[in-house]
Amino acid sequence: MRTLIKNTTAVTLDAGDHILPDVDLALEGRRILAVGQAPPDFAPDEVIDGREMVAVPAFFNAHCHAAMTLERGWAEDLPFERWLNEKIWVAESALEADDITWGAALAAAEMIRSGVVGFADHYFWMDKVAEVVADSGMKALLAWCHFGIGDDKEVGNVSFEETVAFVETWNGAADGRIHTTMGPHSPYMTPTAVLKRFVAEAQRIGVGAHFHLSESDEQVRNSLERHGLTPPAYVAELGLLDLPRPTLVAHCNAATPEDQSLLAAKGTYVAHTPKTYQKLGMAMPPLPEMLGHGMRVGLATDGPASNSDFNMLEIMRLTGLYWKGALRDPEAMPRTKVLRMTAQTSAAAVGFPESGVIAPGRPADLLLLDTTAPHWIPRHDLAAGIVYTAHPGDVAYVWCDGRLLYRKGEFLTLDIDRISWEAERRAFRMVGKPMRSLRAYAA
Amino acid sequence: MRTLIKNTTAVTLDAGDHILPDVDLALEGRRILAVGQAPPDFAPDEVIDGREMVAVPAFFNAHCHAAMTLERGWAEDLPFERWLNEKIWVAESALEADDITWGAALAAAEMIRSGVVGFADHYFWMDKVAEVVADSGMKALLAWCHFGIGDDKEVGNVSFEETVAFVETWNGAADGRIHTTMGPHSPYMTPTAVLKRFVAEAQRIGVGAHFHLSESDEQVRNSLERHGLTPPAYVAELGLLDLPRPTLVAHCNAATPEDQSLLAAKGTYVAHTPKTYQKLGMAMPPLPEMLGHGMRVGLATDGPASNSDFNMLEIMRLTGLYWKGALRDPEAMPRTKVLRMTAQTSAAAVGFPESGVIAPGRPADLLLLDTTAPHWIPRHDLAAGIVYTAHPGDVAYVWCDGRLLYRKGEFLTLDIDRISWEAERRAFRMVGKPMRSLRAYAA
Repeated sequence: MRTLIKNTTAVTLDAGDHILPDVDLALEGRRILAVGQAPPDFAPDEVIDGREMVAVPAFFNAHCHAAMTLERGWAEDLPFERWLNEKIWVAESALEADDITWGAALAAAEMIRSGVVGFADHYFWMDKVAEVVADSGMKALLAWCHFGIGDDKEVGNVSFEETVAFVETWNGAADGRIHTTMGPHSPYMTPTAVLKRFVAEAQRIGVGAHFHLSESDEQVRNSLERHGLTPPAYVAELGLLDLPRPTLVAHCNAATPEDQSLLAAKGTYVAHTPKTYQKLGMAMPPLPEMLGHGMRVGLATDGPASNSDFNMLEIMRLTGLYWKGALRDPEAMPRTKVLRMTAQTSAAAVGFPESGVIAPGRPADLLLLDTTAPHWIPRHDLAAGIVYTAHPGDVAYVWCDGRLLYRKGEFLTLDIDRISWEAERRAFRMVGKPMRSLRAYAA
Repeated sequence: MRTLIKNTTAVTLDAGDHILPDVDLALEGRRILAVGQAPPDFAPDEVIDGREMVAVPAFFNAHCHAAMTLERGWAEDLPFERWLNEKIWVAESALEADDITWGAALAAAEMIRSGVVGFADHYFWMDKVAEVVADSGMKALLAWCHFGIGDDKEVGNVSFEETVAFVETWNGAADGRIHTTMGPHSPYMTPTAVLKRFVAEAQRIGVGAHFHLSESDEQVRNSLERHGLTPPAYVAELGLLDLPRPTLVAHCNAATPEDQSLLAAKGTYVAHTPKTYQKLGMAMPPLPEMLGHGMRVGLATDGPASNSDFNMLEIMRLTGLYWKGALRDPEAMPRTKVLRMTAQTSAAAVGFPESGVIAPGRPADLLLLDTTAPHWIPRHDLAAGIVYTAHPGDVAYVWCDGRLLYRKGEFLTLDIDRISWEAERRAFRMVGKPMRSLRAYAA
């Protein structure tokens, strides 16, 4: 497939932060062939008019639970314990394998629509999610969540061996668009012996791991009591940060400066989900300090039961706004810095470190944003427009590996009407609501 | 004009926070005639299919500088002094009267598109803004900003007498959709003698005042030094909080508990603009404490030179998220509370206290949001959907005083193509950029 995008403006996110006006972009196969002018003999299968549009590297979501779309809006304005025990676990206990398919497909649609082409997912029945990723044309790093305690099958989980079999079966699938990784839930839930088994299997298969880490002061205290180590030091001692592929950890709200240096030295990727922290009333991780220690922090949504949606444009915006305000410093978190965290660091966290730059030879993971809506005018600063005013409604075209996934409201790989219907009726079934179109919420 | 909205779901924001599924809404003239079922003899001029939509009272923006759309994106990631002195004032010094027309028209379009039907504006050449409000079908409270120092005409301002003449000429215009109010810049800029003249003229004409108040600790210190009073106590002593119509003040970032009690007792409206505070690195006003003192706080954007846009959906979201996070309490700022601050308190601050509820007899200021996009599914909680996931792209219909202003991407009162072109070329002229469509940003 050869695509020619004509007369567009590219926010390249290259080393010099170049913004290139009035360029053509040639996509060939899975790569960007040329930026500026296509070779004279380039014969495109499709030509896209890029005027009044801005091309930007596609976004990646470094940590989520995609199928939790089914619980969007199901637990609002509640304290964490009630949110989890009275609402989320009750709904999750009703999950069936096919629900994951439709919940994840809905998440895929929502992500594509807001310019996201890849995500790191950590949930149950991940073979179903892998099928959705394969069909949708997206990229993903998939971990089958395993608690390692009690009867893991309660919430759709399977045995340790089955999660490992998933990792072996699906790694590299869909022409390399799918990476898999080990999915222990966390060092505070998963017993030491099970964590060690994960390390051994990761070494054998040649993958990494993805888990929750240091989310609260309480977790740190408990870890110090049980193991004499903070959670990052403890998982490092177990070998979880020295696997064949990089480890990805979510959150680190309570990471100490020593923890931060350790995670930086290990090259561990950390997913930062600011909307979830604020919405659930959690402590905000010290992001500037973490970046100052050299940590590799990618932006992410977490699941929509907490984050409400999968809008990475909003996550970038919240990150910039939060730190300018918290540090009382408008120079904190410049606009291209949050763009890089989403397009580059998150991409690398998901296993696609070449993505995130519009340049010849790079993967053709990019989008075109329509800049003609009133909130873009005047177009003094396109990077600021993307970070501080853009909506998913501005996303006009989305390519992943050179394949067009979305065009002006049309999903090219997903049956959005079927997905919406299936996801809503299954979500309502899970919580015992009748499916009566828009009536059920008022029950 | 009679409009019948059929089979919709209404988030009424009435005293019981009722959400009414599958209702018809009948609009007659400028009012809501019926909620539930139209009278048998109701003969609508237009019938709207409200299925899969949610009706909600329209939003109001309690403080902005509408024509500053022209400076959107012109001063990014800069410290406040450089933002103001090197960028904003430089651009504003190039403002001409007609620029205000197109800048304000762009703001009007952007507000309508995100569900806002009324705003409090505080800027220059306000007769131009009044014409835009009249033509657009919106509602507004308009103040001609007057510093009262030096040559006020420098930034398009006029004499004290001329700003007062504007207030007299335009108050009650456009069938009562336009209210006017006195516009001293602030107690820190405007001399005491000038503030006293504003009080006398407001009393004579029967209006209120709108100005900036207590934005920083420095302003409080200076006021204590000069007047022996905090800024609110000082303006109260001058009579600025006891005018014939309620006074509206912006910000109060540094209001003391005594100030808060005073402002509450006076019935003063306060505009809260969280995105601007964060983006410019200002202190966040203590909103829960202010509400606890009984202050009337409406949400607002401020100008897009700081806020970037006029998206009140985002302002609601930021308000909820910020306080849940800052107080470490997910029960802080429930979703209907921030909805009420925007639909009701902001409406009252703009001078339309009857708006903000979907009920018979109320003004027909309302919108329909399309809930079929992926980020709405499943529709477990529509109020949460509005506050935590909705985008301006979901706004399908907007009525103000029973008149339809916007229908599925189409502006019914504004020539959006002309407005976008005029606003962009004027904005580029102001900062000396050539107008070459999308090329100028990269200069």
